[in-house]
Amino acid sequence: MELNEEELLEAIRRVLSGAGPEVRVGVGDDAAVLAPTGGELVVTTDALVEDVHFRREPAGARDLGYKAIVVSVSDIAAMGGSPRSAVCALILPADIEAAWVMELFGGMREACDEYALWLVGGDLARGREVSIAVTVTGEVAPGTAVLRSGARPGDHVVLTGEVGGSAAGLRLTHVRTMPSAAQLALVRRHLRPTARVGEGRVLGRHGATAMIDVSDGLALDLFRLGRASDVGAHLSIDDVPVADGATLDDALGGGEDYELLATLPGAEAVGAARLELKESFGVTLTTIGRIVEGSGLRAIDADGTARPLEPTGWNHFR
Amino acid sequence: MELNEEELLEAIRRVLSGAGPEVRVGVGDDAAVLAPTGGELVVTTDALVEDVHFRREPAGARDLGYKAIVVSVSDIAAMGGSPRSAVCALILPADIEAAWVMELFGGMREACDEYALWLVGGDLARGREVSIAVTVTGEVAPGTAVLRSGARPGDHVVLTGEVGGSAAGLRLTHVRTMPSAAQLALVRRHLRPTARVGEGRVLGRHGATAMIDVSDGLALDLFRLGRASDVGAHLSIDDVPVADGATLDDALGGGEDYELLATLPGAEAVGAARLELKESFGVTLTTIGRIVEGSGLRAIDADGTARPLEPTGWNHFR
Repeated sequence: MELNEEELLEAIRRVLSGAGPEVRVGVGDDAAVLAPTGGELVVTTDALVEDVHFRREPAGARDLGYKAIVVSVSDIAAMGGSPRSAVCALILPADIEAAWVMELFGGMREACDEYALWLVGGDLARGREVSIAVTVTGEVAPGTAVLRSGARPGDHVVLTGEVGGSAAGLRLTHVRTMPSAAQLALVRRHLRPTARVGEGRVLGRHGATAMIDVSDGLALDLFRLGRASDVGAHLSIDDVPVADGATLDDALGGGEDYELLATLPGAEAVGAARLELKESFGVTLTTIGRIVEGSGLRAIDADGTARPLEPTGWNHFR
Repeated sequence: MELNEEELLEAIRRVLSGAGPEVRVGVGDDAAVLAPTGGELVVTTDALVEDVHFRREPAGARDLGYKAIVVSVSDIAAMGGSPRSAVCALILPADIEAAWVMELFGGMREACDEYALWLVGGDLARGREVSIAVTVTGEVAPGTAVLRSGARPGDHVVLTGEVGGSAAGLRLTHVRTMPSAAQLALVRRHLRPTARVGEGRVLGRHGATAMIDVSDGLALDLFRLGRASDVGAHLSIDDVPVADGATLDDALGGGEDYELLATLPGAEAVGAARLELKESFGVTLTTIGRIVEGSGLRAIDADGTARPLEPTGWNHFR
C-alpha cells in the first residue's frame, strides 16, 4: 500500500498518546521538550537493520519494536542511569504494510511503558530496507555515572543473571518443530530481552568501578571493559552462569543477553550487591573473574591453568 | 576494503577528540553523559537516506556530514532552543571506503564546532545503503519553547532570509557546465544549509506564538503550523522572499531551506524582531501573511484576490 507520511504520523501519534507531566512537548512538533531533573543527561543511540539484526517477519513487528527500545535502555542501565525519553528514526521500504509499522510502534510503546520512559518523537523516511535507529535519553545523579574505564587490578568481575540464552534462542527461531516450554523461554529471551535498569543503579550504589552491558558477547564486552580501563581480566570459565539450553560458546560469544558486567572493589561489596539484587529483583549476581595488571583476557580453567582467550563476539561489520 | 567496527570507532574517536567541560563522558562508553543545565531538554531525530535524501558522491561526504547535523540543529532552533549534543546511528554498506566515512565524520565535527554542540556518541551497523540518523539534544529556558500550535487569528506570519535557494541549488548539482558564482552560491545553500539558532531565540524572545523550520517547503510547513494551531493562513505570494536564481515554485514547494517560519502577535513585535535580527545576524525578516480563523492555506495575489493554495512540498514517502 502507499503510505503517506502525514497519515502514518497521525496514526502513530494515537498509539503514542499519553505522556506524563515531565513531557512538555511530545510527538508532533519540531522537537520534543522534557522537564529538567537536576541530574546529568545520559544519551545513547542504536540502530537495528533488516537482515543484519533481524528478519522482517509478518508477526514479528511488535517484538522488534520492543527490542529496539530495550537495547538502548540497556546502555543507559550500564551507566547506572534511568531512562526518560526515546526518539526513533525509522526507515521503511515501499512494500511495507501500515499494520506492520503500527505493531512496531505498539511494541516500542510497550517497552517504554515497562521501563517508564516516553517515546517523544521520530522521523520517517523511505529506504530499501527497514532500519530502526532509537536514541534514548536518561539521567544519572551528578558524578555517579559508572564508566567502562574505572576497573582496577584486584577488582572482582561480576555478572547479573545468565548468558548465552539469547544466542540459543536465536538458533531455535529457525527450528520448525513444536518447541518445548524451555525452548520457548530461550526464544523469548532473544526476542524480548530485559534491560537491567534497577540492577545497574544498585551496582553503582555498591561502588561498581566499571560497567558494560553484554550486547556483543561476554568475552568481547569484558575485553572492551579491560581495554577502556587499561587493565587485563581473568575469566573463570567454570563460573560463567550459562543459561539452560545454551552452550559455553553461546555464553562467551553469543551476545544480545543484555546482562550487566561490572567490576566491584572487593568481596564485601560483591556480597552486599548480591544480597540487594536478590531481594529487590530476584536476580543473581555471579563472580566470574578478577581484574589484573596488563591487558587482554585469560581464561582460567577448573584446574587453575590460564590460557589466552580470544575476544570473540559480534562484529557489526562482519 | 573490509571495515572493522573497533578500528573505525577508534579512528572516529580521534576525529571527535576534544570535548568541553560540560561533556562528562563522550564517545566510547555505553552512553554519553552531559552536565545538567537547569533548562528543559529538547530532543529531535532525523534520518538522511542514500538515493532518497542524497547521492553517494566520492567527494560529497564532508558536506553530507555537515548537513546531517544542521537539519537536526534546525529543529532545535525552531523551538527557540540551543543545541548541546549529537549522537549518530550510521548504517554503511560493505563497499564503503573508510576515507569516505572519516570525511563524513569530519563534516559532522565541522557543523558541531560551528553550532557549538558536541558529537558525543554513535552506533555503526552494516546495511545495503548509507543512512545517517542524527539525534540532537538541546536546551531551552523552562516554559519558553515555541511550539507549532500557538498561532492565533490576527498574528503576522514572518520568515527569516529567503526560500527556494536550496531547490534551485539541487537542480544545479546536475548541471555539467562550469557554474557561475551565483550558481555556486545556490549549490552551497543546498549542500551546506544554515540553521537559524540565534534567530530562533530572538523570535522567541519577541513573543513568537508559533514557529517551524522550512524543511519540506514553505507552503507545506505553513499548512502544518496552521493545522497544529487549529487556524488558517493567508500567504501574500508577492511578499515571499524568493532567493536569486530560484523560482516561485522552488520557494513554495522546494524545501530544505531551513529558514524559520514564525507567527508574531502584532506589527510592533515584528518591527522589533526585524531590527534585532538585522543588527545581530544581518538576517532579514519578512512579513509574508496573516493567520486567520478556519483552516487551510489561501494565496493572496497582488490584486488582493484569494485562492486556495495546495500545501505542496516534500512527502518522505513519495
